[in-house]
Amino acid sequence: MFSARNTVEEVEEGSTLAPKFDERGLIAVVTTDNESGEVLMHAYMNREALKKTIETGEAYYWSRSRQQLWHKGATSGLVQTVREMRIDDDQDCVWLRVEVKGGASCHVGYRSCFYRSVPVGAERDGGSSLRFTESQKVFDPKRVYGDAQNPTQL
Amino acid sequence: MFSARNTVEEVEEGSTLAPKFDERGLIAVVTTDNESGEVLMHAYMNREALKKTIETGEAYYWSRSRQQLWHKGATSGLVQTVREMRIDDDQDCVWLRVEVKGGASCHVGYRSCFYRSVPVGAERDGGSSLRFTESQKVFDPKRVYGDAQNPTQL
Repeated sequence: MFSARNTVEEVEEGSTLAPKFDERGLIAVVTTDNESGEVLMHAYMNREALKKTIETGEAYYWSRSRQQLWHKGATSGLVQTVREMRIDDDQDCVWLRVEVKGGASCHVGYRSCFYRSVPVGAERDGGSSLRFTESQKVFDPKRVYGDAQNPTQL
Repeated sequence: MFSARNTVEEVEEGSTLAPKFDERGLIAVVTTDNESGEVLMHAYMNREALKKTIETGEAYYWSRSRQQLWHKGATSGLVQTVREMRIDDDQDCVWLRVEVKGGASCHVGYRSCFYRSVPVGAERDGGSSLRFTESQKVFDPKRVYGDAQNPTQL
């Protein structure tokens, strides 16, 4: 399914899929909401996750905290259906445009993982605290995940 | 400017900026067009790049190929003005919503770095070649960058 990376020209200007996996065997993934364009999450895939996503049209990732293939929504029911997949110039990043069953993608319970803004430039005069951009959670993570390990690492 | 990462609760639910830099000292960055929501690029920042971006309101990254601080647009003129910065749940990824002077963000000359789609699921019946989503380049990279090293690595 994946081609060899022979020349820069072929990787950048060609029409064959030749993804670059990093020293951990991973490729970065940006996932946005197909309708709103909002960035929902940022994660990684290994070769198997990328292959499964392409084959099934549902998002699979590699869980770094659990060190296993991660079919998004397998526990929470919040499956992501891929409406479009794109790859970037040097083919070391994938962009997924998805529809999310249940409308949430973040393990904390919010719609997007990016539920806080950081004041920048002139905005900082109002203080540099993070500001919440979502006023309430879509689901209660304790009810959905129970005692499962929190993926956030310090 | 950056707080310590003391507890998972504070990192996920708090309002202090406590970014996580990986073993290379980098944090992932997703950059989207403020108007269209299109993903323009995926890159990394080190501490200094994040600090400069917050202070100036213009996007700074860490160039992995050149191993130096990278003020986006310094060579090409395609400066990115940050309209909103967000950070994700575990604070290991930044999302920038930007306006781009000149309308292009990709060193190959396209508007977005993600100028090719990958057929997924049922779409694959039409073949699995990448499909170009932009029909023409915004600028000629040879004129803009001259003999500068191409950042794409095989």
